[in-house]
Amino acid sequence: MATTNAQAQETDLSTLVITADELLNHWQGHRRVTRRVIEAFPEDKLFTYSIGGMRPFSELVMEMIHMAGPGVKGVATGEWNVFGEEEEFKITPKTKGELLALWDKVTTEIDTVWPQIPLHRFHEVEAAFGQYEDSLYSSVLYFIDNEIHHRGQGYVYLRSLGITPPAFYDRS
Amino acid sequence: MATTNAQAQETDLSTLVITADELLNHWQGHRRVTRRVIEAFPEDKLFTYSIGGMRPFSELVMEMIHMAGPGVKGVATGEWNVFGEEEEFKITPKTKGELLALWDKVTTEIDTVWPQIPLHRFHEVEAAFGQYEDSLYSSVLYFIDNEIHHRGQGYVYLRSLGITPPAFYDRS
Repeated sequence: MATTNAQAQETDLSTLVITADELLNHWQGHRRVTRRVIEAFPEDKLFTYSIGGMRPFSELVMEMIHMAGPGVKGVATGEWNVFGEEEEFKITPKTKGELLALWDKVTTEIDTVWPQIPLHRFHEVEAAFGQYEDSLYSSVLYFIDNEIHHRGQGYVYLRSLGITPPAFYDRS
Repeated sequence: MATTNAQAQETDLSTLVITADELLNHWQGHRRVTRRVIEAFPEDKLFTYSIGGMRPFSELVMEMIHMAGPGVKGVATGEWNVFGEEEEFKITPKTKGELLALWDKVTTEIDTVWPQIPLHRFHEVEAAFGQYEDSLYSSVLYFIDNEIHHRGQGYVYLRSLGITPPAFYDRS
């Protein structure tokens, strides 16, 4: 684990504008939208439908799961496995129900682990998954942004299937 | 303009984890990726190509422009017009070059206006564009997330055109 507090020491704390709780709520709001997008897919299309050679939405969701579950633990503890190699998530859901159950498990884990993250961790620079070196607040934003990015792709899959996706702005 | 400092007063400032500068850099990093996605489109497809009845990428980009340019000014000043009604941006670029020029203009405006935002503004609750009431830090995240969301859709357009999109993770 290569951790440095150099950047943390340089951070001008007087200009901080987003709290840890707000960042958690922001993330979980997006996760509620993504859950509705999973639900909106027909059972078979979730695992098979593709445009332009891209992965089916189920595989994009598994990437989000591999990032979020082990990611939040890594941010909290500094312990990282190689991306996608966490034993807990080395499974392949075969049904929408199984995928949603795994999604919900990660949602609960995030809520459980998040309050255990020492605040100074957010400005420590560390290689997430042993590979992606960045400030940890930035890694958390990456987890969220990657979800938004791939979920946006799911919206196109749904639209091309003639299905109206859930509202992007509704985070309830 | 309906502004309240109620939420600002309730914010536990000891738990803030992202600075204003970091949020700006995060946004501009995403904007650099989006600019490369605009560039990656063939000139005609940028304005015409669609999947599932969705808007062409040029129109998604204009939505980002209407949100980002007037949005950052609203956050700084509390002055909001109805979304899409800002005179400065009531134009329809006809070429990729014109669209990129408008994009670059907004990039410069964000860099100019951002440092003028009083830090207390980020936790004020205000109706962005006179309509979307939220904490202003949350409105800024919405501007960014909406860009990621629609840019992700642009990735699908590009893939379905047989074009490899720019790397999502490269924010340089």
